[in-house]
Amino acid sequence: MTNAEADHVDVLIIGAGPAGLMMATWLAKCGIKTRIVDKRGTKVFNGQADGLQCRTLEIFDSFGFAHRAWIEANHMLEISLWNPDETGVLRRSSRIPDTIPGISRFQQVVLHQGRIERFFLDAINEFSQGTISVERGVLPTSLEIDTTTVEDPDAYPITVKLRHLSEEEARPKQTATSVNGTAIQDGLFRSNLSPDDTADMITSAELNQKADTVETVKAKYMLGADGAHSWVRKELGFKLEGESTDYIWGVLDIVPITDFSDIRQRCAIHSASSGSVMVIPRENKLVRLYIQLTTTEKTGEQESRADRSWITPEVILESAQRILAPYKITYRKLDWWTAYQIGQRVGSSFSAYERVFLAGDAVHTHSPKAGQGMNISMQDSFNLGWKVATVVKGLASRSILKTYESERKGIAKALIDFDHKFSRLFSGRPAKDIMDEEGISIQVFKEAFEKGNLFASGIAVDYGKSSIVAKPSVDNSSLSEEKRQSLAPEIKLGMRMPSVKVLNQSDARPWHLQELLRSNGTWRVILFPGNIDSERQKKRMTSLCNKLSVPSSFLKRFTPPSSRYDSVIEVLTIHASKHQDHDIFDFPEVLRPYDEVDGWDYNKIFVDDESYHEGHDQLYKTWGISSSEGCIVIIRPDQYVSYVGEIDDYNSLDGFFAGFLLPQTGSIKAGV
Amino acid sequence: MTNAEADHVDVLIIGAGPAGLMMATWLAKCGIKTRIVDKRGTKVFNGQADGLQCRTLEIFDSFGFAHRAWIEANHMLEISLWNPDETGVLRRSSRIPDTIPGISRFQQVVLHQGRIERFFLDAINEFSQGTISVERGVLPTSLEIDTTTVEDPDAYPITVKLRHLSEEEARPKQTATSVNGTAIQDGLFRSNLSPDDTADMITSAELNQKADTVETVKAKYMLGADGAHSWVRKELGFKLEGESTDYIWGVLDIVPITDFSDIRQRCAIHSASSGSVMVIPRENKLVRLYIQLTTTEKTGEQESRADRSWITPEVILESAQRILAPYKITYRKLDWWTAYQIGQRVGSSFSAYERVFLAGDAVHTHSPKAGQGMNISMQDSFNLGWKVATVVKGLASRSILKTYESERKGIAKALIDFDHKFSRLFSGRPAKDIMDEEGISIQVFKEAFEKGNLFASGIAVDYGKSSIVAKPSVDNSSLSEEKRQSLAPEIKLGMRMPSVKVLNQSDARPWHLQELLRSNGTWRVILFPGNIDSERQKKRMTSLCNKLSVPSSFLKRFTPPSSRYDSVIEVLTIHASKHQDHDIFDFPEVLRPYDEVDGWDYNKIFVDDESYHEGHDQLYKTWGISSSEGCIVIIRPDQYVSYVGEIDDYNSLDGFFAGFLLPQTGSIKAGV
Repeated sequence: MTNAEADHVDVLIIGAGPAGLMMATWLAKCGIKTRIVDKRGTKVFNGQADGLQCRTLEIFDSFGFAHRAWIEANHMLEISLWNPDETGVLRRSSRIPDTIPGISRFQQVVLHQGRIERFFLDAINEFSQGTISVERGVLPTSLEIDTTTVEDPDAYPITVKLRHLSEEEARPKQTATSVNGTAIQDGLFRSNLSPDDTADMITSAELNQKADTVETVKAKYMLGADGAHSWVRKELGFKLEGESTDYIWGVLDIVPITDFSDIRQRCAIHSASSGSVMVIPRENKLVRLYIQLTTTEKTGEQESRADRSWITPEVILESAQRILAPYKITYRKLDWWTAYQIGQRVGSSFSAYERVFLAGDAVHTHSPKAGQGMNISMQDSFNLGWKVATVVKGLASRSILKTYESERKGIAKALIDFDHKFSRLFSGRPAKDIMDEEGISIQVFKEAFEKGNLFASGIAVDYGKSSIVAKPSVDNSSLSEEKRQSLAPEIKLGMRMPSVKVLNQSDARPWHLQELLRSNGTWRVILFPGNIDSERQKKRMTSLCNKLSVPSSFLKRFTPPSSRYDSVIEVLTIHASKHQDHDIFDFPEVLRPYDEVDGWDYNKIFVDDESYHEGHDQLYKTWGISSSEGCIVIIRPDQYVSYVGEIDDYNSLDGFFAGFLLPQTGSIKAGV
Repeated sequence: MTNAEADHVDVLIIGAGPAGLMMATWLAKCGIKTRIVDKRGTKVFNGQADGLQCRTLEIFDSFGFAHRAWIEANHMLEISLWNPDETGVLRRSSRIPDTIPGISRFQQVVLHQGRIERFFLDAINEFSQGTISVERGVLPTSLEIDTTTVEDPDAYPITVKLRHLSEEEARPKQTATSVNGTAIQDGLFRSNLSPDDTADMITSAELNQKADTVETVKAKYMLGADGAHSWVRKELGFKLEGESTDYIWGVLDIVPITDFSDIRQRCAIHSASSGSVMVIPRENKLVRLYIQLTTTEKTGEQESRADRSWITPEVILESAQRILAPYKITYRKLDWWTAYQIGQRVGSSFSAYERVFLAGDAVHTHSPKAGQGMNISMQDSFNLGWKVATVVKGLASRSILKTYESERKGIAKALIDFDHKFSRLFSGRPAKDIMDEEGISIQVFKEAFEKGNLFASGIAVDYGKSSIVAKPSVDNSSLSEEKRQSLAPEIKLGMRMPSVKVLNQSDARPWHLQELLRSNGTWRVILFPGNIDSERQKKRMTSLCNKLSVPSSFLKRFTPPSSRYDSVIEVLTIHASKHQDHDIFDFPEVLRPYDEVDGWDYNKIFVDDESYHEGHDQLYKTWGISSSEGCIVIIRPDQYVSYVGEIDDYNSLDGFFAGFLLPQTGSIKAGV
């Protein structure tokens, strides 16, 4: 074996599934020196996770590729609930919207993981100008952390050995097939009923001396996004805690031939006594069926795995046919299939020394039916990426890294609870009548489904108080923070910034506010001055801008001298006067900065006014902001709301940023 | 010189600008054997035409790439009119919407031609699976038409010799530069003040014996889309007829540094005595300025060209500065510049024997300010492409090809008239007061601008009566056709099908109706059965469907036996009952055909009903269709409306298609 040269990187990512790719996308966008490795030789081509939440699409849009998913995906609009009637015959009991109306500008859609990985790979390549790409067939074999230097911002406390596999070793035992081709693809190689194949791959690698090289990598930070059998988690000695049941479910991705009328809707179908089916209509005429194969529950420890040798696509289809009777269902095209056992487990810890982090399946596993796993996994590293980038650049103190675990562990637990409840409701037998206490009533199920939809949208996430979320603490509620929140009741501290349309003052183009909050690592201060025709509001705005303009302001002192004026903190203005009565020269210069090559900046000042073609979203009214009072809002680089306050309360703004940003007035920090 | 082997193609396209590329896109989509050649060695990189009409975006969307233009383009929402006030000082006199609200689901945007060519090239590559690509540096040198075989559908009456140039010859004298780079690019090499460089290129080619090869191509059909100096037009002996003036305009594409507040809006600026400027804000911070350089008019023959040696970017900028005073304007980045002389000319004929066609600048030239040229050019070949494809496939008789000239010559004349009027209004001196009869009044100009916007949208196009537009003739109006039109007053015969949102019956997803009318060469019959809960309407629908289902129906007999059921004529249904009360099995099978591999077709039946997230567009109400009466509509492959009639009037439908489609019951035609 050859020991290749030692290599220093800012961040090393283990695993190139959705969580790892999201992290790499952030780091590429922020210009951080990054490597991302995966033990498998190829990306995913079909099957696997496929639901995309509203919030995930908002995140994709912030990186510029939501439209690719939106165009290719199947849009899932409606849920139909089917249950046995009094005589035991299957009937549609109700239809409800799949996405709660008004919750987001996107609705939940379905697209297979291979396409989503493709969008990430393209974005990483574009943002990094080709300098970051996934290194496949690379297996980490040892991890050391120098605990004496973990608090030194400039240190590389992590040492990892990486082994490069031969192509043959890196290829999972998987039939090559095109997406939606007619070849049958056995998904079991990657399902949670499979044994962990990492050990096999190391053994296999050792046998193949020629292809094998080992290199040592030194990193400042590391992410383990290497799945439910996470090697990183095991090296850190962290546990996945929880339970599993004996409920076994099969999954078929087919082009169905059926007289069941609702096959292109999301359906929850409970038969009287043959179990349940969930229908997920997909892209390219495919439909995914989640089909219950066993109907008894026996909760046990996580290691108790059911025998799976009896499971074949035919067995799964026959189950579906029994459940769906009297409707007929069969197929000529099978794209992928698998089977899994329901279990819910969550990681004991999400980070070691705020140097090595875990994300995705490495810290939470659960059943796939609610379409949450991939979404929550990507949102883990969406939470983490900008924090690591900001610290690596020397712009913020390491203290913000603690918020990764404090913010995401709660989400993982909520996910596990949601899935636990949802799975049992779904796997249970429907109640025969109101006296049937063991069965699950249609009404209870429907209510759980509707409530679950809010969680499943990803919009309900509400991060707690921290150095980067200035909200009242639960136990010691602060009057001034509560009063501040009342200035914009619908811009909720700790939650993601909502979005309505506003017009650019310079060209009258309507933009969804979120479209202005691109993921590029920048903090945003949004000034809502209200009606600037009011003398009082104009005066307050001017007073604020005078303070923003001096060299000691937080806008200037936290921005490296050689960087663009909006690279660390961008100021956007949304006023409530009439668009036609104003132009950008009515606003102080700090709100529309001048550049000697590009002239004035025409993309900072917006207005809440009627558009020519897309109506008027009435931002001030909708969000409860008074146009004679206004407010100012701070938004994190991941679009979560940090702060709401008075427009002329400069000191509170300054104090907020001073809590974690580092002054840049001296020489530029190492690592920038 | 080497004579390469003779090659037979269905269609040969000369010129790979927007008109030629649109033609190639159609033919690639329809699977027609096609070659497209261009004498230049590269595509356009910057400068050139840049406005995209609403209708052009609708067409792009029908090929699947409107979103690419929509995302990259600058959206131009508002027009500001600036004029001298009573004291001669420049003031904004009004602001109006750039696109008439409600006219289309798209609004006019601006993006440079190089990007648009890129979208076409990608679409052609995708649709043809790489079999069609632009052959650059290829010059036609001779054209022969065998007039004895022009009416034989299987003949190849066209013989063209093509000369392959060396790279050096094919490269125009142009500084290589990146888009929006700081290098100055002289656009004069391609403006209409330049001498035709074709002759130079032939001469140059003859000198370069080594790189030179000549091949002979035999074609069934040919398109000359080779620009204002069209070689094809000259070979055919056709003329461009019209006039030019002495008004000279300069064009600068710059990143402006200015205190003029409306620089990001489309502006028409008339100074008191220094001439006019039109501002067109563009993508990537660029702004295009059309700047009047001379203020005297002298109309003359087309060959009278002004001396251009005095025109430089500095001269053009100084003109702009005079006109815009007291506002200041300068730049540090100049992307492109050119100058042109106003003229309007239209081709004497658009086709020779319905075998060789001309499109785009080859048959109409005019001033660029209204942003029409590229749009009308692409719409020429959008009108032609599917007709040629349908005839080549043996599906329709050659008679439909006559409609190319009858439909497009009228449009070209309307364009020339529009531009003639618009240019003179724009180049004229503004009236000092109401008594100033030589000057142009602000009110007249504003009204012309607003009226011009309807023409400029591309939506107003209204094709006349023909074998493929069953409308009342102007002079001999038919009572039955007028009565039929009254069944759907807002679906206007001869105009493009309007678009509102409808829901898919199977999955409740909202679609803009136009999104269902993809450009793939297929005719559509749209059945609007109204409320199918009405016994009468259900009976009428059943009666129609019984006739559609028999082997002798037009659906079956014009479709080749081996082709898919919807390949020639697709039937779509949009009913007006409640979505939730129905499923596709409530409709006759011919409206949701069965395929033994894919099952039922879930994408044929739609409903005019409330959506969960996108409102309710009230199709029946908006278009004046009675839900107790309904109607049936035939739409051409290019989305223009051919026929409106009663839902159970099968015979009129059959008669319409029998007028030009060819029965396919025998063996498959040659050329399919």
